[in-house]
Amino acid sequence: MNTADQNFDALRLNLPPAPKPLGVYKPCLIDGKYLYVSGHGTVQDDGSLIMGRIGDTMTAEEGKLAARQVGLAILSTIKTNLGSLNKVKRVIKVLGMVNCKPDFEKHPFIINGCSELFAKVWGDDNGVGVRSAVGMGSLPGNIPVEIEALFELF
Amino acid sequence: MNTADQNFDALRLNLPPAPKPLGVYKPCLIDGKYLYVSGHGTVQDDGSLIMGRIGDTMTAEEGKLAARQVGLAILSTIKTNLGSLNKVKRVIKVLGMVNCKPDFEKHPFIINGCSELFAKVWGDDNGVGVRSAVGMGSLPGNIPVEIEALFELF
Amino acid sequence: MNTADQNFDALRLNLPPAPKPLGVYKPCLIDGKYLYVSGHGTVQDDGSLIMGRIGDTMTAEEGKLAARQVGLAILSTIKTNLGSLNKVKRVIKVLGMVNCKPDFEKHPFIINGCSELFAKVWGDDNGVGVRSAVGMGSLPGNIPVEIEALFELF
Repeated sequence: MNTADQNFDALRLNLPPAPKPLGVYKPCLIDGKYLYVSGHGTVQDDGSLIMGRIGDTMTAEEGKLAARQVGLAILSTIKTNLGSLNKVKRVIKVLGMVNCKPDFEKHPFIINGCSELFAKVWGDDNGVGVRSAVGMGSLPGNIPVEIEALFELF
Repeated sequence: MNTADQNFDALRLNLPPAPKPLGVYKPCLIDGKYLYVSGHGTVQDDGSLIMGRIGDTMTAEEGKLAARQVGLAILSTIKTNLGSLNKVKRVIKVLGMVNCKPDFEKHPFIINGCSELFAKVWGDDNGVGVRSAVGMGSLPGNIPVEIEALFELF
Repeated sequence: MNTADQNFDALRLNLPPAPKPLGVYKPCLIDGKYLYVSGHGTVQDDGSLIMGRIGDTMTAEEGKLAARQVGLAILSTIKTNLGSLNKVKRVIKVLGMVNCKPDFEKHPFIINGCSELFAKVWGDDNGVGVRSAVGMGSLPGNIPVEIEALFELF
């Protein structure tokens, strides 16, 4: 069985730089065997953010890719702070927040962009936790997706 | 003292079918003595969803009933996955998310539809935890209420 | 080193009355070494709530002060229920929910009003946890900010 780091390498995706806090908070925090991860945004390889509102300036497909980018930003925070994705045993919980028009209805489709990435890295059982995927009124810097998460560590 | 299952039976309410995931997540996840429950929607007895926006196509009273239906869907997930409501010791946390017009102000009234159900099942102390009841910009499939929860198990 | 209570006293700020639940929930709940705190609103010294929507009837600066007031309400709940702020070891997680116009982008700035208060009370390390700062569609009673939190106790 491959490790999480090996699984990620096989995807041939780039990790963006681990985002620096935009306010008074920590990007992640370890409490015993738990890793809490702050709400992450759509950080790209050059450090800039994907911006837009789904159903308005952005399609659902673009939104799903944006959610995958948020997942990559979370992976980058884990790798930068813990040294390896292998330190994570499993995903416990994901809160996927979508910046979209009030009549948008496909939030689960959007957040799958992140959840499918986690499932590829940690596997179909350990990489999948509980989740809520919901529509916000707005998000910081007009990013289309923000995701916070809770992981169990080895 | 009655058990949670006995308390629920005394309410003479139907449990809807336990909802299947609409994306890459688990309906619930056990971690030690904790049960994490994904965001649940307004699943009815025939498996269909109550849809609508509170303050727009739906009254507050209808919204409160919809929140009770979300509570029933959560009970169904617990019963299906754990076999009995008696496995739950107490409610720790509820996040109640309301799909409503921007000028709606009675979110706590809506989410009480779920919280009052939990209080009847597990009692006025163990059935009541911390809570936030807030207004979203939108919810999946235009459901009026989505609720996620954390329980402590025996 | 000063205690949290001493740090708070040095700020010369008033604690509002601990808010009573507006629905079926507990203001806070202790589970082992964790303190869960319900979503709190902008309770003022006379018990009334600051109301308004940021970017609409309220400026960002007013919103940041409102978030500080929410932080004070949380401190009041802790002091009322645990007797002292010294019982808290550290902030684990904050969810900062902002009631604002859809085009508002400075949510982290708003929620810093609460986070900076916590950092002054429990210090720059223990007083700072993970966080999400996001925009809601609406909040109960049209309050501008609602914040829920998780603390670790000594």
